[in-house]
Amino acid sequence: MQALNNLKVLDLSRYIAGPNCGMILGDMGADVIKVESPGRGEETRLLSPKIGEHGIYTLVYNRNKRAMTLNFRSPEGQALLRELIAEADIIIENFRPGTLEKMNCDWDTIREINERATLVRISGYGQTGPWSSKPCFDAIAQAGGGLMELTGEEGGEPLPAGTFIIDYVTSLYACIGVLSAIEARHTTSKGQLVDLAMLDCSISLLMTAIPEFALTGRELTRGGSRDRYSTPACNFECADDRWVHINAGSDALFPRFVRATGMAHLLEDDRYATNAERLERIPEVEGFVSEWTRATTSEKVIDTMTKAGVPCSRIDTIGEIFHNEQLRARGQFIKVQNPAYGELTLAGIPICLSETPGALRHAPPVVGQHTDEVLRDWLGCDEARIREYRETQAI
Amino acid sequence: MQALNNLKVLDLSRYIAGPNCGMILGDMGADVIKVESPGRGEETRLLSPKIGEHGIYTLVYNRNKRAMTLNFRSPEGQALLRELIAEADIIIENFRPGTLEKMNCDWDTIREINERATLVRISGYGQTGPWSSKPCFDAIAQAGGGLMELTGEEGGEPLPAGTFIIDYVTSLYACIGVLSAIEARHTTSKGQLVDLAMLDCSISLLMTAIPEFALTGRELTRGGSRDRYSTPACNFECADDRWVHINAGSDALFPRFVRATGMAHLLEDDRYATNAERLERIPEVEGFVSEWTRATTSEKVIDTMTKAGVPCSRIDTIGEIFHNEQLRARGQFIKVQNPAYGELTLAGIPICLSETPGALRHAPPVVGQHTDEVLRDWLGCDEARIREYRETQAI
Repeated sequence: MQALNNLKVLDLSRYIAGPNCGMILGDMGADVIKVESPGRGEETRLLSPKIGEHGIYTLVYNRNKRAMTLNFRSPEGQALLRELIAEADIIIENFRPGTLEKMNCDWDTIREINERATLVRISGYGQTGPWSSKPCFDAIAQAGGGLMELTGEEGGEPLPAGTFIIDYVTSLYACIGVLSAIEARHTTSKGQLVDLAMLDCSISLLMTAIPEFALTGRELTRGGSRDRYSTPACNFECADDRWVHINAGSDALFPRFVRATGMAHLLEDDRYATNAERLERIPEVEGFVSEWTRATTSEKVIDTMTKAGVPCSRIDTIGEIFHNEQLRARGQFIKVQNPAYGELTLAGIPICLSETPGALRHAPPVVGQHTDEVLRDWLGCDEARIREYRETQAI
Repeated sequence: MQALNNLKVLDLSRYIAGPNCGMILGDMGADVIKVESPGRGEETRLLSPKIGEHGIYTLVYNRNKRAMTLNFRSPEGQALLRELIAEADIIIENFRPGTLEKMNCDWDTIREINERATLVRISGYGQTGPWSSKPCFDAIAQAGGGLMELTGEEGGEPLPAGTFIIDYVTSLYACIGVLSAIEARHTTSKGQLVDLAMLDCSISLLMTAIPEFALTGRELTRGGSRDRYSTPACNFECADDRWVHINAGSDALFPRFVRATGMAHLLEDDRYATNAERLERIPEVEGFVSEWTRATTSEKVIDTMTKAGVPCSRIDTIGEIFHNEQLRARGQFIKVQNPAYGELTLAGIPICLSETPGALRHAPPVVGQHTDEVLRDWLGCDEARIREYRETQAI
């Protein structure tokens, strides 16, 4: 048994924020159907890099789903969509606000068809407010939502986090919204509308920035790799030209650091003995540390810090991460197989449940791989009816 | 009614990843009790910046909780903890692996006391594997988990995302784990252990990096603000020295961009007409765009792009975000009041549910603010018993 085996999900979404939400629900056991336009399917399927003719980008966000095609623009396709909605617990969409309405499938229609259904709508700015129809991508939300302002060297140009972090975060909030609605349904017997905006999600990540600004007018900005609360805590370069991050800033960690590196005399020095004092002298403190790291290989730095119990990591490359023994021991790489494209290795399932663990049940599907199967399973269609859907180009 | 009103949560956690998980459950309606050591409470309460004597850092992650004190180290405190666990649906902890065991409160003990309870354990590297006892902070997980490798200028030094993003992401996965376990409990009547590792969560954010490396050996690395899949799509500087992010890279968006900026002739030019061609000539393409932005104010750039339907945002400062009309219209700033520290403005609740919306029920509490109230509510204690707990220094 898996935790979400009782849930049926219709995933109409594209790109990352929607598909990743559906995938996580699938990882935890939901029956998730990825619905795409007939033919080429989701437009991102054509993006490089590819495995065979299949864009890896789309495959990454769609494991543990079955894929069917449906013509969103034809009356026959829209009628079929409503039949599927009647069977679904959850519908995920991230069209531009207004698009679902054009498909004759607005929230009022969905409730009428299936009052137990929950509709998750993911968009850049939300379903309400003056910006609701503006287009948005991850980097746009990082720019407008504060993450770019906070990322980059001190005094340098603003930068995004190097992954689609707001897409990911929004997908995680969407899962929490879905599961909250499902929990409420055990009491109310009714579904609800879940409205997620990337911009709202962005500002939930800003630490103390908002209350600080409201109170004092002080605007938090970027500061490189330096910790905001203690020192020494930042990236340091080692003798072998590799970077490590060391956090020895707290008054519990600093003594361990200096003892392990032959600098115990600093504990006797009033200028450095407490974090409060050290924060007044960041360049000197970081200077001591970097003098040591520049004379020491990254391997030796890691080893010394690990023995001393000081948090430290090399800034690992993707290849090094791929071989990380801890991730390997925890089964955090999984291989998937599909006759269409062969074998693919994906990041694993980070949510580890002891009694109903997530599992790989479906490799990422290709366009329409399970159309017939889903029509049989969800709607009890016979071959004649499936043929009819195909002839009317509903699928 | 709120979605999670039926859930009682005992939050033993510190810093961000644990507390933020408890807070989100509280935002959605759970009865969340923040348990801290008597006296100064969670050590982060002393961090600057402060409102009065109260560190804002801790307040930010603890709204919608009630706070009680409990002496984790004394037999009386540990006995009280077990009484509370008997009443809880969910227990959240992010001590170093092994600490809960020392408190005579390991998973086997918890199951024995309350077989319906779910224990969420959040740590740097997880409860299993060779690295399980290593200390970790957010930046350490960003370094070891790939995010630093992917963030920064092309060819420049690695940088972290400028917020505690892995703490946040881990807290969101923890919420999904909790709610999955609660959904499973409707079938099994039993709780379970949920094991979250920051490192596992980190590598779930790496886009196509892992499958690409496994297939081809190619290691994704940092590339500034540039989109990986299309061009033009990156940060551009404007005439007023402000930065904007424009994404006009796709073959749907590029024509809108060039028409809006008087460069429609590029559509006739084979070298730039398709994204595939443009990706071969990124410097030239970005050159055209930045020539235009450098001659145009950021306000005019945003206005032109918005009218053309091209995704675009200024890189807003925290102050600008605080005044953002869309966030204001969506109620994404909330004011909290506590006699101890006055008024504080926080980011709102990004999960918008139509029927059982989240709400602010408790301002972030100060240490032990609700100890007596919780002992009465959860355990039905009378004044004499509360006095006894206080005399034995259990609370």
